[in-house]
Amino acid sequence: MTKIAVLGAGAWGTTFGQVLADAGNQVVMWGIEPAVVDAINHDHRNPVRTPTIERLPDAMTASLDREEAVDGAGIVVVAIAAQHAREALEPFRPLIGADAVVVSLMKGIERTTDKRMDQVVTEALGLPEERFAAVSGPNLSREVAVRQPSAAVVASVSPETAQRVAQACEAPYFKPFVSTDVIGLELCGALKNVTALAVGMSRGAGYGENTAAMIQARGLAELTALGEAAGADAKTFAGLAGVGDLIATCASSLSRNYTFGFNLGRGMSIEEATEASQGVAEGVPATNAVVGMGRSLGEPTPLAQAMSHVLDQGLDCAGMIEELFGGPISAE
Amino acid sequence: MTKIAVLGAGAWGTTFGQVLADAGNQVVMWGIEPAVVDAINHDHRNPVRTPTIERLPDAMTASLDREEAVDGAGIVVVAIAAQHAREALEPFRPLIGADAVVVSLMKGIERTTDKRMDQVVTEALGLPEERFAAVSGPNLSREVAVRQPSAAVVASVSPETAQRVAQACEAPYFKPFVSTDVIGLELCGALKNVTALAVGMSRGAGYGENTAAMIQARGLAELTALGEAAGADAKTFAGLAGVGDLIATCASSLSRNYTFGFNLGRGMSIEEATEASQGVAEGVPATNAVVGMGRSLGEPTPLAQAMSHVLDQGLDCAGMIEELFGGPISAE
Repeated sequence: MTKIAVLGAGAWGTTFGQVLADAGNQVVMWGIEPAVVDAINHDHRNPVRTPTIERLPDAMTASLDREEAVDGAGIVVVAIAAQHAREALEPFRPLIGADAVVVSLMKGIERTTDKRMDQVVTEALGLPEERFAAVSGPNLSREVAVRQPSAAVVASVSPETAQRVAQACEAPYFKPFVSTDVIGLELCGALKNVTALAVGMSRGAGYGENTAAMIQARGLAELTALGEAAGADAKTFAGLAGVGDLIATCASSLSRNYTFGFNLGRGMSIEEATEASQGVAEGVPATNAVVGMGRSLGEPTPLAQAMSHVLDQGLDCAGMIEELFGGPISAE
Repeated sequence: MTKIAVLGAGAWGTTFGQVLADAGNQVVMWGIEPAVVDAINHDHRNPVRTPTIERLPDAMTASLDREEAVDGAGIVVVAIAAQHAREALEPFRPLIGADAVVVSLMKGIERTTDKRMDQVVTEALGLPEERFAAVSGPNLSREVAVRQPSAAVVASVSPETAQRVAQACEAPYFKPFVSTDVIGLELCGALKNVTALAVGMSRGAGYGENTAAMIQARGLAELTALGEAAGADAKTFAGLAGVGDLIATCASSLSRNYTFGFNLGRGMSIEEATEASQGVAEGVPATNAVVGMGRSLGEPTPLAQAMSHVLDQGLDCAGMIEELFGGPISAE
């Protein structure tokens, strides 16, 4: 059995660890909370993060010790909150094997640097990009946790690395596809929440499937054009990590982005919605990131622009749609 | 005011007639049912087909007479059941003005000829393709009927024709975009129901958002490759008439395809599901059409193949997904 380390014992890290164990690997979770590590080792559970998993696989253990976790691991999976990834990874730099591949499950843009997670991980670990892969797709963790059929994309600039990681995570209920478009995969995951926010808002305002689908199609077109200008492949945006993840995200009424948008659509102020969703949703910084990228790449970003007017100026849902519908008739 | 004729007073024809009237046109509906024509003219209602519309616009009338309906109409919109379009259109051939543009709202493949609706309409009317346009998008009629925000694509090989039709149907709640990819638009609308059937099936089997999103992304990839091989533009499939319509269709649990698939997923036989959904769902002939097109164009169609095994051999949902997940790891 191959040893794989998973750094971070949150919901997705633990669930993906279970996928890896189900795929026949020996999995060691690294966590910082003694209670979580203890529960995984002694009760085969992570009761707070993955409450629906009654018993984690026997091939899954946990450790508080960085060296013990990654020692001898051919693959190191990173599932740490995006904004803390750089700081959390640096102590691992001297510990990760010279042949090991590092896989990011994280989605986001580092706010202090505007960098993608592939950049953050390779910089923090001093890793050549050929030894980096990212995994993304329509993978709501609570559904993967109960082994519902899911597919994902494994992207690496090295086709061999992508293949190696895909083979390691292929389980009866989890189907990986491979890609070399790391930039496209990272941008999809990091920026989709602008659209999720807008869809939540339209649902909060009482609109149905047509409006939600229109926002998703327009958001996808905007992100695709932006991605192409940044060197990504349009196909990634039309695939599992693009439209697939977007559909699952926008259909999931439990997410913070959805709830935040929904409450804005119902007429709450930004302050009220922030309080109700217990913190800022990822779609808020993502909106600023898309507007900024559009400006620097010379691409129009009408949906993100309209959402920024919602967030900065309190524009309501009808006004947001009016802004989207304004302007002359054009090609898509 | 421009006079526009709408042939067919079903749910979508009547609703699109309302869009056209709201956009400032004089609309004449042509119908074959005296009770429907009478209700539109005297009660401003079409109670059976659009029960949620309390009062149709004053600029909308109806006629049983073909010549009266299309006489002087600059735009003639066709909203007749796909399988009856050719026969229903032929009597209009000598009546439609020499400068009039004909717009199809229909989705489907003519079963007896395997032809798209653009081919059926231009053949039946002897119409040059420059005077033909098709409209498609995420437009569930019951939501457009109550004026919820929706967008659509107007496609014609002639950009001027597309622009003319788009201008005619732009209303405060209805935003048209233009395209020259008629083939792509027609294929999206006609063939999406293979995916809708598979999504309904996965929901009937108890699977959630990940599985539904995975099926949609894989179905889209399959249809895009098929469309490109047939001369269509991949962008159409990633747009409002492609993924947009697909998302709205798959989210709409009221559709016959969804219900038919749902019942199969719950474990009903084809016979039981056909009886329960009162007739064959469009996804059934669409599945055969996709498999056939894939064969003649040399493109793999794994989702349609798996669905044909469901329909022909009684394969269950787990087996369908196993078939999709089988085979070596590949690019998307």
